[in-house]
Parts: sequence; C-alpha cells; structure tokens
Amino acid sequence: MGIEDFIPSNNVRLDQQLKFTAEIDKMTGILRRTMLVDGSRRENDAEHSWHIAVMALYFKEYCVAPVDIERAAKMCLVHDLIEIYAGDTFAYDPEANKDKAQREAAAADKLFAQLPDEQGSELRALWEEFDAMETNDAKYAACMDRLQPFLHNTLTQGHTWIGSDTCRANVEKRMAIVKEFMPEVYKWVEKNIDHAVEAGWLKA
Amino acid sequence: MGIEDFIPSNNVRLDQQLKFTAEIDKMTGILRRTMLVDGSRRENDAEHSWHIAVMALYFKEYCVAPVDIERAAKMCLVHDLIEIYAGDTFAYDPEANKDKAQREAAAADKLFAQLPDEQGSELRALWEEFDAMETNDAKYAACMDRLQPFLHNTLTQGHTWIGSDTCRANVEKRMAIVKEFMPEVYKWVEKNIDHAVEAGWLKA
Repeated sequence: MGIEDFIPSNNVRLDQQLKFTAEIDKMTGILRRTMLVDGSRRENDAEHSWHIAVMALYFKEYCVAPVDIERAAKMCLVHDLIEIYAGDTFAYDPEANKDKAQREAAAADKLFAQLPDEQGSELRALWEEFDAMETNDAKYAACMDRLQPFLHNTLTQGHTWIGSDTCRANVEKRMAIVKEFMPEVYKWVEKNIDHAVEAGWLKA
Repeated sequence: MGIEDFIPSNNVRLDQQLKFTAEIDKMTGILRRTMLVDGSRRENDAEHSWHIAVMALYFKEYCVAPVDIERAAKMCLVHDLIEIYAGDTFAYDPEANKDKAQREAAAADKLFAQLPDEQGSELRALWEEFDAMETNDAKYAACMDRLQPFLHNTLTQGHTWIGSDTCRANVEKRMAIVKEFMPEVYKWVEKNIDHAVEAGWLKA
C-alpha cells in the first residue's frame, strides 16, 4: 500500500505531479505542538496550513500596507512543506532552531526537485519569500502563521506555553510581526498575553 | 477549554473573525471515507481541503480552458466548510445525497453568518460557485476534488470503492468532470479504473 502501487501514465510530467501529490500527503503525519481548539489532540501540518490559508482570506483589513491575499494564501499553503523532511521545529525550542535553516534548505532541495523544474522553483520561491518575511505578502502570511497557534493557545489554557515553560518575552518576540504589521490585532494579542501571565501559563 | 475561554478585543468585527477562525477548526474532526496515502487512518476535511488547494497550484496545464488558479485554490479552501454542520456526504451513497443540497444550504446560512456580512457573502459565493461547477475555475477546483481521493484510492488498494461496494459506472460518473475538463489526466484515470476492475476493487 502506498506510492509503490502507483500506476504511471504515459506522461512523465503528469507522473511527477501525481507522485508529488502523494508525497505531500505526509504533511498529515507531521505533528505540531499546538493543540486543536477542542483540546482533543495535536494538530498536524496539513491542518495548520489549511487553517492559516483560509484565515488569509479575511484578515487583510488590519494590515498597515497593501497585501495580495491570494499570493499570501499560496505561501500559507506551502510554507511548511519542507517539514516533511526537516520535521517541525518548535518555535520555543532554541536548540532545535540553531540548525533549522540548514535542515530546511536540504529538505527543500529534496522536495521541490520532485516537481517539474519550473513548478518546483515557483513553490520554492514562495516558501523562501515566506521565510524571509520581507515582502508585505510574506509578512501577512507570517502573521497568520503566528496568530493561529496563538489563538489555539488562548483557547487550550496555554497548552504549548506551559509545555515549553516559556516566558512573556519569548511570546512577544514571536508575535512581533503582528505588532508591526497588524497593530490593531496586536492589541488583542497583548490582552491575551497579559491574561496568560496572570493565569500562570506564561512566566512573567 | 475551547471558545468559551475566548477573551474579546474591543473590536466586534475582529472578534467575529477570530471566533470564526476557532469555529472552522472543527473541519479537523469531519472525517471523510478516503484513507491517507499511507493507509494509517481516514483523512479529515481540513487535510483534504489543504491537499486539493495545493494541487490547484500545479495541474492547470491540462485544462481545456483558461483558469485562475488562485481563485480555484480559494474555492478548494472553502468548498467543504459547510460540512462542519452538514457532515461529509459520501459521493457513493445515493440515499445521503438526496437531501444533500438542503442540508448544505442550511449549514451555509449558519456558518457564513458568523463572519462580517461582506466577508461571509464572499466565501459563500465561492462555495456556491464551486458547487454549481459551471465556471472554469469551479470545474478545475472540482477536478482537484475528484482527483485527490481517486489517487488515494489507487494507492490504498481501492479502500473506499471496496467499502462502498460501488461499480465502474459510478466512478466514471464521479470522474466525468475530469474527462471533460482535463482529458489528458483522464487517460491516467481510465487506466486506473481498468486496473481497479481487474483487481476486484470495483464491480465491472
């Protein structure tokens, strides 16, 4: 069972695209630290990527600069694909973050080479743009990527904050892009950080 | 734990958008009949929606008419949202399909009303366009929605076909949009239908 049962077409490009489609299904097995809103289990990368891509469709109005929500949504869709090989690097784990860039670049080499050249390059460029967080579209996508687990944390009694024994300053650093790019939303973030510290979910 | 712990902002619109975000996380609990490629478990609506939205980024070249892949990807992202309230209606279950339209319209009324008006209307319009399958973008999104579970079935020894005791004609009907809109891809589909019948996964 699995890709070994794949029956090729008569078209090499199409086979590449179909096999890539099967390969990225592995995103469903990459677990994140974040819990689902109902607290039943940890979410996976496929679910997270879907969730933030949908969010990108309706949070634009809070941005301090113009964004192309379709481009941002595409970044959201592909921003974690490299974790199929590099694994999920937890935002509040300083050790794991040391070699993150290196692991992820190697993963990208392996992953995007499975698509026809120009398509692999296009998706890789979207991921690199997301990762650099310099363009407005990338900043917006990054805000979605930060806001969603933040929201989940607030609704699951600070689950990942408590689990990682992290502090206010670390969360503020993680959420800094929201402060910069979506200040109105950051007011709500700040209110929740205050609450998380009061509730003992975050160290002061 | 859950939405009852939501701390409001000072902005009613923002609260609607944040709560909608929490609400649609329920997509992770709507199970489909399709298995993941590795056969480990059934996929859920969030995973499926993510998967077909990514696919929409790189299958365009096979379409017989021009498509806007960004619009199609947006349709893919939202096409199953109403299943949060209407449930997943299995394609090969004729009974459940009888009242599908009615159940889904009621679900849409409930769901999209949770967003600010114009945003709810916009997402609902995308869903309705997808569902009507008349525009090129909707046809392309529908092809992704058919191709992905088809690919999974071929890689999981016909799991959902066997489970539903279905036949070649039903699968051909389900895949007709691919035949019409992506005939080059349909050649591969047909080859796999032949194989599925030979293997006993599908009745002749």
